[in-house]
Amino acid sequence: MYSGAQVSLYPMSGDFVGIILGALKALDPYRDRLRIETDDLSTLMIGPPEVLFSAMRDLFVAAAKTGAHCVLSAAVSRGCPGGPESDPICGVDKRAGANTPLAGRIEEAVAAVRTAKVTEQLAAAQFALYVMGSDQHMDEIMGCIDFLKQSGTFDRAKNFVTKLRGDSGAVFATLQEALFRFGPVDGHVTLDITVSANSPSKV
Amino acid sequence: MYSGAQVSLYPMSGDFVGIILGALKALDPYRDRLRIETDDLSTLMIGPPEVLFSAMRDLFVAAAKTGAHCVLSAAVSRGCPGGPESDPICGVDKRAGANTPLAGRIEEAVAAVRTAKVTEQLAAAQFALYVMGSDQHMDEIMGCIDFLKQSGTFDRAKNFVTKLRGDSGAVFATLQEALFRFGPVDGHVTLDITVSANSPSKV
Repeated sequence: MYSGAQVSLYPMSGDFVGIILGALKALDPYRDRLRIETDDLSTLMIGPPEVLFSAMRDLFVAAAKTGAHCVLSAAVSRGCPGGPESDPICGVDKRAGANTPLAGRIEEAVAAVRTAKVTEQLAAAQFALYVMGSDQHMDEIMGCIDFLKQSGTFDRAKNFVTKLRGDSGAVFATLQEALFRFGPVDGHVTLDITVSANSPSKV
Repeated sequence: MYSGAQVSLYPMSGDFVGIILGALKALDPYRDRLRIETDDLSTLMIGPPEVLFSAMRDLFVAAAKTGAHCVLSAAVSRGCPGGPESDPICGVDKRAGANTPLAGRIEEAVAAVRTAKVTEQLAAAQFALYVMGSDQHMDEIMGCIDFLKQSGTFDRAKNFVTKLRGDSGAVFATLQEALFRFGPVDGHVTLDITVSANSPSKV
């Protein structure tokens, strides 16, 4: 499966360059399992789901632990028809999508979030999940919503997006499960994600 | 048509609160034509397309003119089935989507960008366009790409996104045209947008 993301990190600090350069070291353990390309707007990461989300989590947490208000924003995609169908670096993710009964996948997704790595960095997040090319997946969307409400990270539904809150480990695990455990197996599914720490606004 | 966005503004500055509060004044001329709600992650704006994109442009330009590296990130949506079908504040946008021949709409979109307000604030941007609920719109997508290549703001295709560059007025006009001039008239179409100014990285 072709999966990846365009990832941007925004430290609201005069030292944003230093914070970004410091946080990028958190990607070092993943570099042999991701294709990484950076320009002035974002960093492309192509790789298997668990590597992709662990790398985004560690990048975000490294920046947030400086204490600065930091936001990670990303366009995350699986099964994009624009990409190679089987990029070797992406591996095969047998779990992706609706190839086993929905109730079991909801349980597995909840368990994955409960056992996610604890980072001790609180995060607020919101995301939109988009399923392209089919209008036959309402059961999958409803199943994903069931999962979110049991995930422990669900905060509330907003216009266009769902809001999460919790430890960064659980938040990124929730996003990973939403993208890869639900929806059509071979479909093009994307996430628009925003993850924030240390905001001076508490709402 | 129900259209709106969740909009976030990220000034990479120790004075990010001051820059955001200053830039928010740029929304004042639009407040009677938009529904606006803010929390710690984003500001919801619901309203007609031309008001929505003009408001985002003016918010971004006001922040960028401070000289700080600023990014506006937004999830923009039209026809979202989660919302009221005909929110009174959204009005009616007769242009939206594939109800007239494609060639004419490409010309109209190019003309709209050429006559866009000039802000004298350079921007780099990238976006993903998502069309939900149908796989019958490849002509529309190809037409939109034709438009982008003639828009004067096209920079290059990246994985998952298209990159733009130009005056902020032309960039936001390009994004507005891409969302509203192409795709199914009654469809759910979304944009994931990132617009940046004053980046110290020039790529």
